[in-house]
Amino acid sequence: MQEIYLDNSATTCALPEVREIMVRALESEYGNPSSMHGKGLEAERLVRHAREQIAATLKVDEKEILFTSGGTESNNLAIMGTAAANRRNGKHFITSAIEHPSVEKTMEHLESEGCEVTRLPVDREGRISLDDLKAAIRPDTVLVSLMMVNNEIGTIEPIEEAGTLIKQVNPGTLFHVDAVQGYGKLLIRPRRQKIDLLSVSGHKIHGPKGIGFLYIREKTRILPILFGGGQQNDLRSGTENVPGIAGLGRAAETAYRSLEERMGHVSRLRDCLTEGLGSLPDVTINGPLGEHRAPQVVSASFAGIRSEVLLHALEAEGIFVSAGSACASNGQKHPSATLTAIGLSREQMDNTLRFSLGVLNTEEEIGKTVETLERLLPKLRKYTRH
Amino acid sequence: MQEIYLDNSATTCALPEVREIMVRALESEYGNPSSMHGKGLEAERLVRHAREQIAATLKVDEKEILFTSGGTESNNLAIMGTAAANRRNGKHFITSAIEHPSVEKTMEHLESEGCEVTRLPVDREGRISLDDLKAAIRPDTVLVSLMMVNNEIGTIEPIEEAGTLIKQVNPGTLFHVDAVQGYGKLLIRPRRQKIDLLSVSGHKIHGPKGIGFLYIREKTRILPILFGGGQQNDLRSGTENVPGIAGLGRAAETAYRSLEERMGHVSRLRDCLTEGLGSLPDVTINGPLGEHRAPQVVSASFAGIRSEVLLHALEAEGIFVSAGSACASNGQKHPSATLTAIGLSREQMDNTLRFSLGVLNTEEEIGKTVETLERLLPKLRKYTRH
Repeated sequence: MQEIYLDNSATTCALPEVREIMVRALESEYGNPSSMHGKGLEAERLVRHAREQIAATLKVDEKEILFTSGGTESNNLAIMGTAAANRRNGKHFITSAIEHPSVEKTMEHLESEGCEVTRLPVDREGRISLDDLKAAIRPDTVLVSLMMVNNEIGTIEPIEEAGTLIKQVNPGTLFHVDAVQGYGKLLIRPRRQKIDLLSVSGHKIHGPKGIGFLYIREKTRILPILFGGGQQNDLRSGTENVPGIAGLGRAAETAYRSLEERMGHVSRLRDCLTEGLGSLPDVTINGPLGEHRAPQVVSASFAGIRSEVLLHALEAEGIFVSAGSACASNGQKHPSATLTAIGLSREQMDNTLRFSLGVLNTEEEIGKTVETLERLLPKLRKYTRH
Repeated sequence: MQEIYLDNSATTCALPEVREIMVRALESEYGNPSSMHGKGLEAERLVRHAREQIAATLKVDEKEILFTSGGTESNNLAIMGTAAANRRNGKHFITSAIEHPSVEKTMEHLESEGCEVTRLPVDREGRISLDDLKAAIRPDTVLVSLMMVNNEIGTIEPIEEAGTLIKQVNPGTLFHVDAVQGYGKLLIRPRRQKIDLLSVSGHKIHGPKGIGFLYIREKTRILPILFGGGQQNDLRSGTENVPGIAGLGRAAETAYRSLEERMGHVSRLRDCLTEGLGSLPDVTINGPLGEHRAPQVVSASFAGIRSEVLLHALEAEGIFVSAGSACASNGQKHPSATLTAIGLSREQMDNTLRFSLGVLNTEEEIGKTVETLERLLPKLRKYTRH
């Protein structure tokens, strides 16, 4: 059976060129970058090259790229690292009501340690209001942390406007952007967008799992959260994950090599899927439909059908989607903060699927998905009690 | 030129079977273990299998294995996680004077937060004294953290005796063992050895970089240091590094499949190298020579020759060794804590090389290394001022 993988916001397969460089780093160029001999230098070169590849995609300095074990560590470091470095400047943090758990739970941890956190509400499209943000910034606000693209409904937040506003109201407040779902999809220019810290994960862009990076603007006050051998300028100890780093560099370069073309393709698939779903009875698209919509996410509620039922029915046809964000571990069932924040009822949430698209998907796959849903929905609704 | 890699304590190449399973996890079984569909289950199965493979090597329960981004994170989590979970029980920690920076620097961080740390001295072989340990344990001692095998001179610490003693003196005190240089070399039985927490790194055992695990005995009080999606029972958030985990499982299984035979081979190489070095003029072997000596490390001081000079002279002949521990980042030059603690003079330290052996090394390589040194030493000494 043909597999149709529409869960690219959960994770992606690694590209052939990513696997190729990783195998090289595992097999022959396997040195420890801290070693003083040639095998160490070889590995160090792989790390430096990846740093350059990534810096080029953001037009920043390669010294501003710090490798981490992934998006979760990047978000934790951005928040806890700035909290620790700025204790004397304040204990107030601002974020939104729809952040990924790696931001939200870290904020909760700071609260348990005596910090104060303001969570901005969002509108029905999932967007924060700049007026709310302006009103929330205080003289003692250490950091504002906002996601670039929401992982569940694909909303693009007003990052550049927020960055400009933050620096106007309080130039001492740092701006962190969780770009795990935005990097590789949108053009990102940290300097112009006034971003001080930016989190990225490898496995969302056809790179490896277990690797990510944090862009840290030069001179940003931040302290490490892991202690040890002093690697990466003492900000992230631990032997560098050279194969992962090399793979991430390659994936980043590929993602931005022809961004417009690639994302043009994904956007067309998204519009095609949105239109197809719209033609089916009792299906609602959640989140933005206009310019604030990321290329890759389609969230839809199927009235009268529980998402797990539909998810497994689609799976039986070789189509893989998500019942929500897959970033929370199995077995944990909380009502989605994002879907709650944009005003969905509990029932609508229970009927919601996320289709997340990638560059490897095709129009044919989208067509087949819509056809399959057209066939499945009446059958499933017949057997479902209301 | 034939490469002779004698820096296996810094890092190792990944075995073919490790690369093979990693490529599978990157290419086809690339799902997110948290996803509810088949591709998620496939990835989850790879993680579970690796957990079983590792648990089997320690004869512990698979639920007691937690995956981390490597030895540094494992050590940080063991120490900071137990400190956070046991705040009400005490603020006293015990470690040794010769720990890896990922233990020592984490202890220093705890000190900066108001904890008290006792550092046990070591004898000329690098061993702690059980009497010192006994005297140091207090009613408010939260944790004792000791390394199993020293990374610079290969000393095996009295782990089982220490574990038994700790539980006799204060059953509430936890015992953490940094086994980064011991796992895959020695038989480890956490239950018998009374170990509550045990840190392991993948890339020291021909597994991948960027992955490691922490054995956590059931019911051990510990809190996470990274917050987010709640993966791994909420103790280590972040999408699991499935390729790394699968590779680590495979490497662990291989390391313990015929441990005695494999380490018999490495011990013979070590003895061969020790004998060869002993036959050269003005060469001293550092650390233990008897039963407390790990199979893989030979530390030697070459009177009158700076280690960097000899390291690069050997490198020119295709032989890769270390001038000390390679776990500290480039450019950082501190006198080695281990070599200081066992009583070496500053000059001896500056003349010290570490040869670290692995299963892939051969007797022929050791012979060639000794021959090369025999040829190089007189030349280098001629040009060196005393």
